[in-house]
Amino acid sequence: MKLVIIRHGESLWNKKNLFTGWTDVELSNQGINEAKQAGQRLLDQNFSFDIAYTSTLKRAIHTLDIILNEMNLVYIPVIKDYHLNERHYGALQGLNKQETAEKYGDEQVLIWRRSFDVKPPALTMDDPRAPRNQSAYQRIDEHELPLTESLKETIQRVVPYFESTIKPQIIAGENVIIAAHGNSIRALMKYFLKISDTDIISLNIPTGVPLIIEFDENFNVINHHYLDA
Amino acid sequence: MKLVIIRHGESLWNKKNLFTGWTDVELSNQGINEAKQAGQRLLDQNFSFDIAYTSTLKRAIHTLDIILNEMNLVYIPVIKDYHLNERHYGALQGLNKQETAEKYGDEQVLIWRRSFDVKPPALTMDDPRAPRNQSAYQRIDEHELPLTESLKETIQRVVPYFESTIKPQIIAGENVIIAAHGNSIRALMKYFLKISDTDIISLNIPTGVPLIIEFDENFNVINHHYLDA
Repeated sequence: MKLVIIRHGESLWNKKNLFTGWTDVELSNQGINEAKQAGQRLLDQNFSFDIAYTSTLKRAIHTLDIILNEMNLVYIPVIKDYHLNERHYGALQGLNKQETAEKYGDEQVLIWRRSFDVKPPALTMDDPRAPRNQSAYQRIDEHELPLTESLKETIQRVVPYFESTIKPQIIAGENVIIAAHGNSIRALMKYFLKISDTDIISLNIPTGVPLIIEFDENFNVINHHYLDA
Repeated sequence: MKLVIIRHGESLWNKKNLFTGWTDVELSNQGINEAKQAGQRLLDQNFSFDIAYTSTLKRAIHTLDIILNEMNLVYIPVIKDYHLNERHYGALQGLNKQETAEKYGDEQVLIWRRSFDVKPPALTMDDPRAPRNQSAYQRIDEHELPLTESLKETIQRVVPYFESTIKPQIIAGENVIIAAHGNSIRALMKYFLKISDTDIISLNIPTGVPLIIEFDENFNVINHHYLDA
């Protein structure tokens, strides 16, 4: 059993060094090219997919669309779910990482970015950036929607969704691809590889490179590697 | 209750005057522009959608993707189903309309194109163009998959799918968009407007122009019009 995971290609805000989180930012041209290359590599290596999962954020959806287009698989079902969204970065969303360091101090920013269970300052309920005020999330129970998240909370959002929805598909023999984000992929990798709370912080996932996970019949990971050029 | 239907933008084969049918041809640059304009027009007129349906053919899927992108609605569910595919054009698929006329005679081609229940010559079972031999249709019972179709058979494929799957969504108050094809849209329009078998043949649906259908509480059409520039 195999699973392919891909972090979206470079976004316009990755480039500008802004905290993105759930902000719905488009891919940069480089991000589009990363996605095309990923699709070509998967095609060259004879991968194929029966079903695809992605977040509700366009940088992940478009990465997936570009990959499926390169692979001539645009007809497969694509399930979009906010459980696969990036970690919500609270009131830091939209701020420059440099400016944030100047405002709150380097040490505080490092704590927000590199601790397991500390959350950035929350958005207020009436903030237009709050998911409950955005059209994409109107159908979700607002108690489910974060105003900020620690990495721990992101994991608590991502892993049960994976276990209840995606894992049964893989076990049934479906070839699955997931297009997601740095922290939602960290959540999955922590779960797959039983990485500790401290070590998961420093696991970096490159943008736009397919990550291949192989499982044994008990869903233990027996191999994982990037599909590099 | 409202429904928006759109025929895919111009494809590379519309341009070349080839019989397309289920051949999975990409949009032309003009087709891409038609889709963008359709999305802008829908946005300008304050349309929004909760769910989208399309065929499994990329010219319709990409038309829909472009529209949803223009409208900032890439997060909504998109259901792809072969029941919304173009009429299957059998052994004529891939042939130039002019060459076909020279080979079979103008009159015969006119009969295939403009009769309600006459089918073009069927593909053989082992033809690589037969849907049963194509990866996109491996999950469909092969007895469901055509080797050729009359317009009548296309209607018999499209309308029950609409009635069982899409109509309940509209009745439930969902804002629905359908991206489809000349003949699958004819099928829907015949059903909505109770057009006769002879009149439906000459109903032409322009590419890339949103068609707005309004229903009363008994699902009778009370108004339909194109969203022109």
